[in-house]
Amino acid sequence: MRACDLISIFPDARLVGDKDFVIKGVGAASTAAPDSICFIEAEKYLEGFRKSASRAWIISPQIFDSLEQRIKNERIFFVTEKPYDSFVRLVNHLFPARKSKPGIHPMAFVDPSADVHATAEIHAHATVEGGAKIGAGVILYPGVWVGENATIGENSILYGGAKIYHGTMIGKRNILHAGCVIGSDGFGFIPDKTGLLKIPQIGKAILHDDVEIGANSTIDRGTIEDTVIGRGTKIDNLVQIGHNCKVGENCIMCAFVGVSGNTTIGNNVLLAGQVGTKGHMKIGDNTQVGAQSGVSKDVPPNSKVKGYPPQPLKEYLRLQALIQKLPEIYKRLVKLEEEKS
Amino acid sequence: MRACDLISIFPDARLVGDKDFVIKGVGAASTAAPDSICFIEAEKYLEGFRKSASRAWIISPQIFDSLEQRIKNERIFFVTEKPYDSFVRLVNHLFPARKSKPGIHPMAFVDPSADVHATAEIHAHATVEGGAKIGAGVILYPGVWVGENATIGENSILYGGAKIYHGTMIGKRNILHAGCVIGSDGFGFIPDKTGLLKIPQIGKAILHDDVEIGANSTIDRGTIEDTVIGRGTKIDNLVQIGHNCKVGENCIMCAFVGVSGNTTIGNNVLLAGQVGTKGHMKIGDNTQVGAQSGVSKDVPPNSKVKGYPPQPLKEYLRLQALIQKLPEIYKRLVKLEEEKS
Amino acid sequence: MRACDLISIFPDARLVGDKDFVIKGVGAASTAAPDSICFIEAEKYLEGFRKSASRAWIISPQIFDSLEQRIKNERIFFVTEKPYDSFVRLVNHLFPARKSKPGIHPMAFVDPSADVHATAEIHAHATVEGGAKIGAGVILYPGVWVGENATIGENSILYGGAKIYHGTMIGKRNILHAGCVIGSDGFGFIPDKTGLLKIPQIGKAILHDDVEIGANSTIDRGTIEDTVIGRGTKIDNLVQIGHNCKVGENCIMCAFVGVSGNTTIGNNVLLAGQVGTKGHMKIGDNTQVGAQSGVSKDVPPNSKVKGYPPQPLKEYLRLQALIQKLPEIYKRLVKLEEEKS
Repeated sequence: MRACDLISIFPDARLVGDKDFVIKGVGAASTAAPDSICFIEAEKYLEGFRKSASRAWIISPQIFDSLEQRIKNERIFFVTEKPYDSFVRLVNHLFPARKSKPGIHPMAFVDPSADVHATAEIHAHATVEGGAKIGAGVILYPGVWVGENATIGENSILYGGAKIYHGTMIGKRNILHAGCVIGSDGFGFIPDKTGLLKIPQIGKAILHDDVEIGANSTIDRGTIEDTVIGRGTKIDNLVQIGHNCKVGENCIMCAFVGVSGNTTIGNNVLLAGQVGTKGHMKIGDNTQVGAQSGVSKDVPPNSKVKGYPPQPLKEYLRLQALIQKLPEIYKRLVKLEEEKS
Repeated sequence: MRACDLISIFPDARLVGDKDFVIKGVGAASTAAPDSICFIEAEKYLEGFRKSASRAWIISPQIFDSLEQRIKNERIFFVTEKPYDSFVRLVNHLFPARKSKPGIHPMAFVDPSADVHATAEIHAHATVEGGAKIGAGVILYPGVWVGENATIGENSILYGGAKIYHGTMIGKRNILHAGCVIGSDGFGFIPDKTGLLKIPQIGKAILHDDVEIGANSTIDRGTIEDTVIGRGTKIDNLVQIGHNCKVGENCIMCAFVGVSGNTTIGNNVLLAGQVGTKGHMKIGDNTQVGAQSGVSKDVPPNSKVKGYPPQPLKEYLRLQALIQKLPEIYKRLVKLEEEKS
Repeated sequence: MRACDLISIFPDARLVGDKDFVIKGVGAASTAAPDSICFIEAEKYLEGFRKSASRAWIISPQIFDSLEQRIKNERIFFVTEKPYDSFVRLVNHLFPARKSKPGIHPMAFVDPSADVHATAEIHAHATVEGGAKIGAGVILYPGVWVGENATIGENSILYGGAKIYHGTMIGKRNILHAGCVIGSDGFGFIPDKTGLLKIPQIGKAILHDDVEIGANSTIDRGTIEDTVIGRGTKIDNLVQIGHNCKVGENCIMCAFVGVSGNTTIGNNVLLAGQVGTKGHMKIGDNTQVGAQSGVSKDVPPNSKVKGYPPQPLKEYLRLQALIQKLPEIYKRLVKLEEEKS
């Protein structure tokens, strides 16, 4: 691919240098081949940029302007305000999502009452149980289990060993990573004469379109109503979503986030790593919760909070600074006491 | 099912209204059909109750007494002290645990030396290895792996991809959710000239009767002795139990609980979400440990603790309140200092 | 095995007692049979030692010297400075890692273009996809998925349902426990007009020799460069390693450790349970991070740290002690104020 051909992918960029330079791949600064393209977005990466063998760069105007003329002459540049975004667009262009190779492997098991679209790709040791519906272009990798009457929307990809309980509804273009579990029983019991009586979980788990679920994450089905994950929400590895939760659109949840049952989460919410929530909480739209926080009370929309209980980020930081200052505070208290006596 | 027929399920309830009203299902207040039955237990749900289309309700006497006569006339009520418990009993009655459909699917693999009861249901792509024993009424969903010489007690259900290492013993009526792993090696190494030498894990993992294990949870086998989970204990998704732990009966462990090796936990213990324990700890009977706590010392029986290290709940809350008060404390200290000078 | 035959396994030990005593197994003090061998390393286990039925013991010189002559006469002793290390060596001798039983089960699926060594053992319902390479002596248990062009080094063991994405490289003598996922997509998105645009993850995951990965742990592939786990590193159950991380040799990571993307970890690093790291952090060689810490800034080599942010262990402990003292500090402040007025 010649440099000038890339302009169609990031039309905002200005191409400086040999328009016919042939780019053969993408790379990271430290290991890229001379004919791979890299990006540089911040000045702290300038040393890596200078040492890199790569000759083609996506670069911000500020960094480009700061370069010596000699380097400007030696390399090829796409100058744009958002180098990383342009780089991602390029990688998406070069490595599009794989299309299904239609067919059911003879070592897959598809129940006769299941409805599998002719364009779906079902690998060896995948299982589609009775009444399940598999949409056009779906890929089921080895070991995937689609339970009775579950539905998988078109062009979704289920990696090895993803497990979908009966009745679960998966939208279009979902990416479900290996080992994730969707629609397992919620965790609910009441004390009984003989021990703990299980509360049957007869609701469903519903994932809307364009959801991505990380490896070994678990999303429980609802008790009576459903558990719902909104369109475009992205969930990292080893995340747990409890029964009856309603998660909005375009949320991001990082690894080890635990959302307890009956929690309502708005749109565009970010939960950083290891955040836990108490049950029945509400987290408003556009809110960000810092890592390792414990959401023990509702969080309003448009807020940045952290800690346990969650506090506005500024207050949290002020408080943490004071805690670090405790040894000094204690000394000053002792000094006052001594002066007293 | 007519309203009067339900009385046999919750004999403590008093039926008010049309005894012949036909109930066709259960529901949540906001989405239930008119002929579904719902419950209301707390006043804060009164608005949802009023707006609901559902006509049949399980209700507490306090809330029932507070209603206008008009509503009392319009709907059918089961008045009882514990509406939720009655509701759960009803759901259990309507949705009993599924019974096995006896048979081994031709795409399952059962080693000739395994002993599978004639009433067990073995799905496609399940594996039962040599010497394993599968009890009456057991259901093994697709992708389940039962290792050599493992035993599964009668009427247990293993959902898709549950993995049982060799020699593991699972009791009766266990529910093992998708992707859980029972009997994996404990985590133990000693430094060696060449790096870290693995300590072989030759004990077993033993789950007694009526245990439930959540999706993708992991329970390690013992080193020399065994790891044991007591009768009736319920474990949520993504929980880890280390080697040689002894967990008592009717315990509840929420998501992301991590119990380090050689920990002893009594009966009726509750570990809330994200609690971690140091190795070799003891937690007494009937104790509750609050979310995100770090159990770095033994916890006596009959206590409620929280924090890291765990403190009695009241002390913990007092301390947290003081921490929140630090900005004020600091100001008051500065004021004293200024007055001094 | 006679007692005198064991000396070859721990040549440093001194044998006291009947050299011809026949040892038939190993055990824990409380449950061992008389002809099983146990160890005792600390005085606090002396009561268990006295009550034990076991007659053969590995023991430290200090404890041995403290025993009454009567007990010295009744039992057989291997006296050595490191009883536990000797015990582990013995267990390794008695229970060596299982060797593969060569062969591909007829219910396994191996793509014709895969290269499986003749000595590998491939169980029912394991899958080896196109272009993958399985080394000598490898064992793939049921439900293992080896994706396209992945390589598994010789004598590695993959337990039930371990999942290896395309292109992943696993070294020699790896032990990958049930349900772990290696090479899943890293978690990266950029905001887009329509929501969140996925950043394709086209790097690899590379595990060097002698790595052990716990059950249901997840290791993401790199974005452009690779995710790398160094030789001899041991990872517990339910651990998450993000994309592009470089982990050194002989590290230990306990359950629920979450290493965010682009983190660099040196050699011989210990991360205790539930430690989380921010992305792009550096943790130096030989460093230990205490349980539940949040690594929000770089940690230098050869340090012991704890807390969030991580602090030197001594400072952390001093600070925690002061926090516990807050009620007293507050009282003393109030007293000063009262005396003032």
